[in-house]
Amino acid sequence: MRSASSPEIPEVNPAPPLLVVLSGPSGVGKDAALAGLKKLDRAWHFAVTATTRAPRPGEKDGVDYIFLDTDTFLKMQERDELLESAQVYGRWYGVPRSQVRQGLRAGRDVILKIDVQGAATVRRLAPEAVFIFMMPGSMQELRGRLAHRMTETSPEMELRLRTAQQELAQVGQFQYRVVNQDNCLDQAVAEIDAIITAEKCRVTPRLVQFL
Amino acid sequence: MRSASSPEIPEVNPAPPLLVVLSGPSGVGKDAALAGLKKLDRAWHFAVTATTRAPRPGEKDGVDYIFLDTDTFLKMQERDELLESAQVYGRWYGVPRSQVRQGLRAGRDVILKIDVQGAATVRRLAPEAVFIFMMPGSMQELRGRLAHRMTETSPEMELRLRTAQQELAQVGQFQYRVVNQDNCLDQAVAEIDAIITAEKCRVTPRLVQFL
Repeated sequence: MRSASSPEIPEVNPAPPLLVVLSGPSGVGKDAALAGLKKLDRAWHFAVTATTRAPRPGEKDGVDYIFLDTDTFLKMQERDELLESAQVYGRWYGVPRSQVRQGLRAGRDVILKIDVQGAATVRRLAPEAVFIFMMPGSMQELRGRLAHRMTETSPEMELRLRTAQQELAQVGQFQYRVVNQDNCLDQAVAEIDAIITAEKCRVTPRLVQFL
Repeated sequence: MRSASSPEIPEVNPAPPLLVVLSGPSGVGKDAALAGLKKLDRAWHFAVTATTRAPRPGEKDGVDYIFLDTDTFLKMQERDELLESAQVYGRWYGVPRSQVRQGLRAGRDVILKIDVQGAATVRRLAPEAVFIFMMPGSMQELRGRLAHRMTETSPEMELRLRTAQQELAQVGQFQYRVVNQDNCLDQAVAEIDAIITAEKCRVTPRLVQFL
C-alpha cells in the first residue's frame, strides 16, 4: 500500500474506469442530457447503441446511433456481439459489447445511455456500474416532451406514458436519480457530471468486472 | 409513494440535509478548502469549532473558530454541550452540538471540518454522515505547507508529520478521498462540491439520525 513516488503516504491510485449507465423513460431527455455531457468535453467514452429504427432528423450514423437493418442486427445478436438487446416499441436496440469494452480497456469512463429494460440487463452483467435514473419533473412535462418530438402518433404516445409510469417505479433499483425539469437541463447535466466526479473520489472504487 | 402535486409519478422528495465531515491530517489544507467552499455560496451551514488555541493572524472569533479560554471550554464539556472534543497538540478543540443541530433542523447541509480523531467520534454518533478525507499529494507537500504556516517549531512539525502518517492510514474509514495537491486547491474544492451534489442525488438518502 505504498506508492513508488511517495513512499511515505498510502498509494493514491488513479481511480479505475467507471461504467456509467444513464437511463430513464422515453422522452425524459436522455439524448439531450447526453449532448450536454458531450459538450463538457471530459475524457469520457460514449457508448453508441445500435438500432433498427429510422434516424430522426439530424441524427448521425455511428455518432447518435449505429443504424442497422434488421437482418444485420439479428446477426450481431446471434454472434453474441451485443451486450444486451431489446425490442422497444417494435424496433430493436442493442449495445455492441465492443463499444463498452474498448472504452474501459483504454481506461476511460464509459457513459452508456440505455432504456430501463436495458439497464436491468446491464445491472445483472455489471452490478458495479453506476446507475443513474433520469426522472421528469412531472408526467405533464413528459407528455409535453413526447408531443413536441412530433414523431409519436397519439396511441403510441399513450403507450409510452403508461410504460413510463411503470418504469418510474423502478427508480429504487438505481443509485442516483436526476430530475430533468423543463428548462433545467443544465442542472441535470451538472448533476450527472458531479456524480461521476464523486464516484472517482470513492475510497472503495467500483471495479467493473466486465465481459 | 405518490406526491400531492404530481399524482402520476413517484414522489421526488427534497433530499434530507446531509452532515458532511471534512477531515484529514494537520496541514493538508482543510481550512483553505473550507474557505473555497464558502466562496461557492451554496446554502450550506458551516459548523464552527470551539478551541482553546490562540487565533492565528486574520482568524475571526465565531467565524473561523469560537475562541474560548480553557475554563469555559471545560465547562461546556461538562454540560455535554460538545458533540466531541479532543486535545490536539496540547490545545482543546470541540464541536458545539448546537452548531450541527441548528443547521440540520433548518434543513441545511452541514459542513463539519474536524481532525481525524474527531471524525472517528462523529462516525460513531452519526454513521450516516458523509465522510471526506483530504490527502496531501505527498509527504513533501505536507511538510512544505506546515513549514510555510510558520507557527510550527521544528519538533512540533516532526510530531505532526508522524501523526499525519498514522492518520493517512485511516483513509479506509472514509467514503471519499480528495487529494489536495499543491496549486490544485480549486480541484479539491470542486470535488468536495461534486460529492455533496452527488450525495443529494442518491435514491436512498443518508438520513442523519442526529443527537
